Amino acid sequence: MNSYGTLFRVSIFGESHGESVGIVVDGCPAGLSLTEDDLLPDLERRKGGKQKGTTPRQEADYPFFKSGLFNGKTTGFPISIFFENNNTRSEDYQKQRSIPRPGHADWVAHQKFGGHEDYRGGGHFSARLTTGLVGAGAIAKKLLNGISIHADVTEIAGDKDLERGLQKAIDAKDTVGGIVECRVSGLPVGLGEPYFDSVESVIAHMMFAIPAVRGVEFGTGFEAAKMFGSEHNDAIENMDGKTRTNHAGGVVGGISNGNELVFRLAIKPTSSTPKEQTSLNWDTEQQETFSVKGRHDLCVALRAPVIVEAATALVLVDLMLQEQRIKRIL
Amino acid sequence: MNSYGTLFRVSIFGESHGESVGIVVDGCPAGLSLTEDDLLPDLERRKGGKQKGTTPRQEADYPFFKSGLFNGKTTGFPISIFFENNNTRSEDYQKQRSIPRPGHADWVAHQKFGGHEDYRGGGHFSARLTTGLVGAGAIAKKLLNGISIHADVTEIAGDKDLERGLQKAIDAKDTVGGIVECRVSGLPVGLGEPYFDSVESVIAHMMFAIPAVRGVEFGTGFEAAKMFGSEHNDAIENMDGKTRTNHAGGVVGGISNGNELVFRLAIKPTSSTPKEQTSLNWDTEQQETFSVKGRHDLCVALRAPVIVEAATALVLVDLMLQEQRIKRIL
Amino acid sequence: MNSYGTLFRVSIFGESHGESVGIVVDGCPAGLSLTEDDLLPDLERRKGGKQKGTTPRQEADYPFFKSGLFNGKTTGFPISIFFENNNTRSEDYQKQRSIPRPGHADWVAHQKFGGHEDYRGGGHFSARLTTGLVGAGAIAKKLLNGISIHADVTEIAGDKDLERGLQKAIDAKDTVGGIVECRVSGLPVGLGEPYFDSVESVIAHMMFAIPAVRGVEFGTGFEAAKMFGSEHNDAIENMDGKTRTNHAGGVVGGISNGNELVFRLAIKPTSSTPKEQTSLNWDTEQQETFSVKGRHDLCVALRAPVIVEAATALVLVDLMLQEQRIKRIL
Amino acid sequence: MNSYGTLFRVSIFGESHGESVGIVVDGCPAGLSLTEDDLLPDLERRKGGKQKGTTPRQEADYPFFKSGLFNGKTTGFPISIFFENNNTRSEDYQKQRSIPRPGHADWVAHQKFGGHEDYRGGGHFSARLTTGLVGAGAIAKKLLNGISIHADVTEIAGDKDLERGLQKAIDAKDTVGGIVECRVSGLPVGLGEPYFDSVESVIAHMMFAIPAVRGVEFGTGFEAAKMFGSEHNDAIENMDGKTRTNHAGGVVGGISNGNELVFRLAIKPTSSTPKEQTSLNWDTEQQETFSVKGRHDLCVALRAPVIVEAATALVLVDLMLQEQRIKRIL
Repeated sequence: MNSYGTLFRVSIFGESHGESVGIVVDGCPAGLSLTEDDLLPDLERRKGGKQKGTTPRQEADYPFFKSGLFNGKTTGFPISIFFENNNTRSEDYQKQRSIPRPGHADWVAHQKFGGHEDYRGGGHFSARLTTGLVGAGAIAKKLLNGISIHADVTEIAGDKDLERGLQKAIDAKDTVGGIVECRVSGLPVGLGEPYFDSVESVIAHMMFAIPAVRGVEFGTGFEAAKMFGSEHNDAIENMDGKTRTNHAGGVVGGISNGNELVFRLAIKPTSSTPKEQTSLNWDTEQQETFSVKGRHDLCVALRAPVIVEAATALVLVDLMLQEQRIKRIL
Repeated sequence: MNSYGTLFRVSIFGESHGESVGIVVDGCPAGLSLTEDDLLPDLERRKGGKQKGTTPRQEADYPFFKSGLFNGKTTGFPISIFFENNNTRSEDYQKQRSIPRPGHADWVAHQKFGGHEDYRGGGHFSARLTTGLVGAGAIAKKLLNGISIHADVTEIAGDKDLERGLQKAIDAKDTVGGIVECRVSGLPVGLGEPYFDSVESVIAHMMFAIPAVRGVEFGTGFEAAKMFGSEHNDAIENMDGKTRTNHAGGVVGGISNGNELVFRLAIKPTSSTPKEQTSLNWDTEQQETFSVKGRHDLCVALRAPVIVEAATALVLVDLMLQEQRIKRIL
Repeated sequence: MNSYGTLFRVSIFGESHGESVGIVVDGCPAGLSLTEDDLLPDLERRKGGKQKGTTPRQEADYPFFKSGLFNGKTTGFPISIFFENNNTRSEDYQKQRSIPRPGHADWVAHQKFGGHEDYRGGGHFSARLTTGLVGAGAIAKKLLNGISIHADVTEIAGDKDLERGLQKAIDAKDTVGGIVECRVSGLPVGLGEPYFDSVESVIAHMMFAIPAVRGVEFGTGFEAAKMFGSEHNDAIENMDGKTRTNHAGGVVGGISNGNELVFRLAIKPTSSTPKEQTSLNWDTEQQETFSVKGRHDLCVALRAPVIVEAATALVLVDLMLQEQRIKRIL
Repeated sequence: MNSYGTLFRVSIFGESHGESVGIVVDGCPAGLSLTEDDLLPDLERRKGGKQKGTTPRQEADYPFFKSGLFNGKTTGFPISIFFENNNTRSEDYQKQRSIPRPGHADWVAHQKFGGHEDYRGGGHFSARLTTGLVGAGAIAKKLLNGISIHADVTEIAGDKDLERGLQKAIDAKDTVGGIVECRVSGLPVGLGEPYFDSVESVIAHMMFAIPAVRGVEFGTGFEAAKMFGSEHNDAIENMDGKTRTNHAGGVVGGISNGNELVFRLAIKPTSSTPKEQTSLNWDTEQQETFSVKGRHDLCVALRAPVIVEAATALVLVDLMLQEQRIKRIL
């Protein structure tokens, strides 16, 4: 279902080229000061067109609050946020409706929804939906007073020099993937459960809903599979649980241990590559060669950090409320 | 919470050295032929002591059905399964209660549950709890008629030669991690949703509840971050959606595309290494040097495949019921 | 939380005198023909000002679809519906902010939300929120092809002659309550479960979220408590499960039995009586005498039937999807 | 599904004549002192055979804890409780398998589960399942320190003199229904939400899962429908929210207001009347006359109070945890 969370729950809606995209945030405690301005910095970061490698599509991305606020504060009831879609060029998509773009959801959506999906711009599958996530995430961040969440691209096209990684895409007239790392400091000990809502479980659940994410690892992650136990184990140093190393990435037994939470995401290369591709035309049942038109990112990983931060914040607020680390009435 | 699933839900309980471990399986359609024997092969695979590198602890691991069956078939009501704990040596743990073992949940559990946790053998955090998962998974596999789920260890200690990888641990008198790969064939197109219950989301949620899992990746996973879009995109070949390559690992836009579902898990080295370690004694607030006693696996990855298969099956049945691919009445 | 449903889930938001009220409908199968016009007849029925005894407050109550539709059909993704609030006279409420109206949520909301609640017009507690329910219910009704849901006021102020019941209120310059009965025909056998989601459980859960509902009974309901078993038992007549009598109201053991589903709701008298009342002024901590101003219904039961039908339809679609009686793809 | 609750969740299982019945209690905070003895008084109250009008079937009803306890305290992990079924006379039921008993779930279960249901003694539909509820409820009551929950039969066969009501059944050689009233004092202000988890919604949801419940009303309930607003409104008297009258039964706008919570349940007459009845034989498709054999209650309402108290306690703990009125660590 298009909602996630137990005591802090988001419900997402909208299509890329429909009338709007948006989100409903349920469970936000009453009394949090909140204006549209609180959301703008992160929404600005999410926007394309600001840096080399991101799409030139520009939306105002202004968040319209439609409920849940009164006198500049949250009321304790659902906050609904809308973003208008003004800047769409749907004809780009209609032309080649019957040729599902490789790497995109065109084909599966067509099968799953019997041809009734809104295919324009990827519809509900579009990264445009993440506008709502980022808006909701900005609210969650405000609730996480004293906790810092920071995500960065650490690698593009296998290169830690990001400029050089991006240049690979430009040179090859292709798209590239990347790695995003997220670090959270200031988390209390004791969030999460071994079964089935481990910190890793609920974060990974949310992260794999972000388009283009192909892998999630915590702490040393896949490297841990190559280590000795004596090497990977983090020795506890003091009564706060601070460990000498942090191979666990801040989670042991599914429960936060008070050290920095660290996880990384593998982001696949943008599916809409400018390169010529082939696909099956489902009308003619023939293979066809085509190039994807439209405005796209050379590397979607570049736009992912603020989305990852938002998604992380949403999950953490929910865990914090469940563990009574955020008061229901502020 | 200790349950997972929407229409097919498991509720897990038990502690490693308590009276029992077990699971309740809710939502199993009526009319499935089922006896204890159906569970034994997978339970046997999960058992330690059968191969080099696994713990000598032996439990009968016999599944006692306590409800949900009648005349050898499921009734449509919850199936509860119990496993007795007979073979416990709790004194191993009681001796060093105040020294939390690095890499284990001892310290976080103590903080989270205020000292009331059952610390013996890891309590509820123990891999012994996965007995229930494997039992429930065997039921799920029976429901997934025509779908094959197969997991394997593909790498130990960074080595694809598994004997050699294990030998590293033996030589070093240490423990090692590994990689488990799971492949599912025969899945229908259309399981999952983009938000928030993508196939990757719900599988990863479940996988990260398995002890020692540190990373989950689908298809080419982290390698995808190094690829070009034109290289990673899987071209659709025929009207069944079969793709030329399968970098996506069978999921696009969060939805199964009818190709083989492929994902990999990073399993950390067993935390209970025979090596000498140091930790904080929370009574004396001093560092102490000690070695973990008790019976443990040199490489827990070796026991993971059957657990991963079970966990996968549980998630897939739930997705299949939601998409009406399994009939409520068999 | 402000959402309800398992496979068909509504998320409600808005405040009576805020910018808007609305609802997000998640889980509607793709391919249902749907326009705003489909919602208008029920929204019209819900409106006040059309009959003796209802509030003169007039809202256009026009449903703006903001997502989930494409080419006049549902896409399978969330349908968001907005209603603008244009016709509000908030000053009526601001004047006596500190005097909680008896029978209203003013006092509990103030306590629960620490004074941050939007108190104007009852905020989120207002019956105006039911606009969203009615809109969503109209969609649910379209999905319930072949099933008829009909609710009626059967009693006002204890009188089965409704004119006469209402006249009691007019004569007494007071407000009155009433009974609403809902009948559903065409339901399949087999919806619901004994634990914990009996048909009665999920319907009652939803009904008690409708403002002013004080009791819910199925079949003969409270009368059943006075009957003999031999009298109350419904003898099965034919292989369709049709019973001679229908004291059970269509549900046995929590499961629909194919007979007409019948239940009744007790609706309390409108809390905003024109009569003079006393309450505690929480600023002065003194009792004060006052009369409620604003525009109100003499008998809210009169507006309840269409809301009850909508709420019923929402629950039934969810049960039908769970039992695979509605196809996921239309 | 066979579980209920958000942060405090019970999962029920078992069949009347199967091996056992039981329940898993998830979310109980760690550190609560608990032994089997804490459950025995309520389990004793639930037992039949102790008073005129209840079944002579005697089970030891001893609760076996199988997990979640350590050193006499809860660990914070799931508590599983088992009750053995020793005293069953299944042959009573097998004889007339094909004649669904009127008022019982025989026919709907047969339809819903395709003939695979355990029909002996009503299987999962049996009131025997409430043993688990009562056991879990006793735990919930211990958590509700300072809150008193008390349920009573207030009416049998329409008579407030209970002896006389019961005598009607004995005289008529039939079964009778009754009214159970539950009163809770000491509840804090602020539990519940207007949508969709009003206090009434979640309590009614749970109550309608108790076998034989046909109606639920809060405060004056159905009587409210006959009252004037000025009469029904409860005037607030003091800064604790204490009201002069309590027609609301302690809930306004779905939220507890700090006054006594009062609700009543209509319990239908026991379906297994000793009277001769007719039903359809689904093998012969003919009507047949028969009398129900087996051991049954003349008036199930007599055994309901302790079940109602338990069910109430379970719901209230969940609401209290959500509102942070019970600490996660005791």
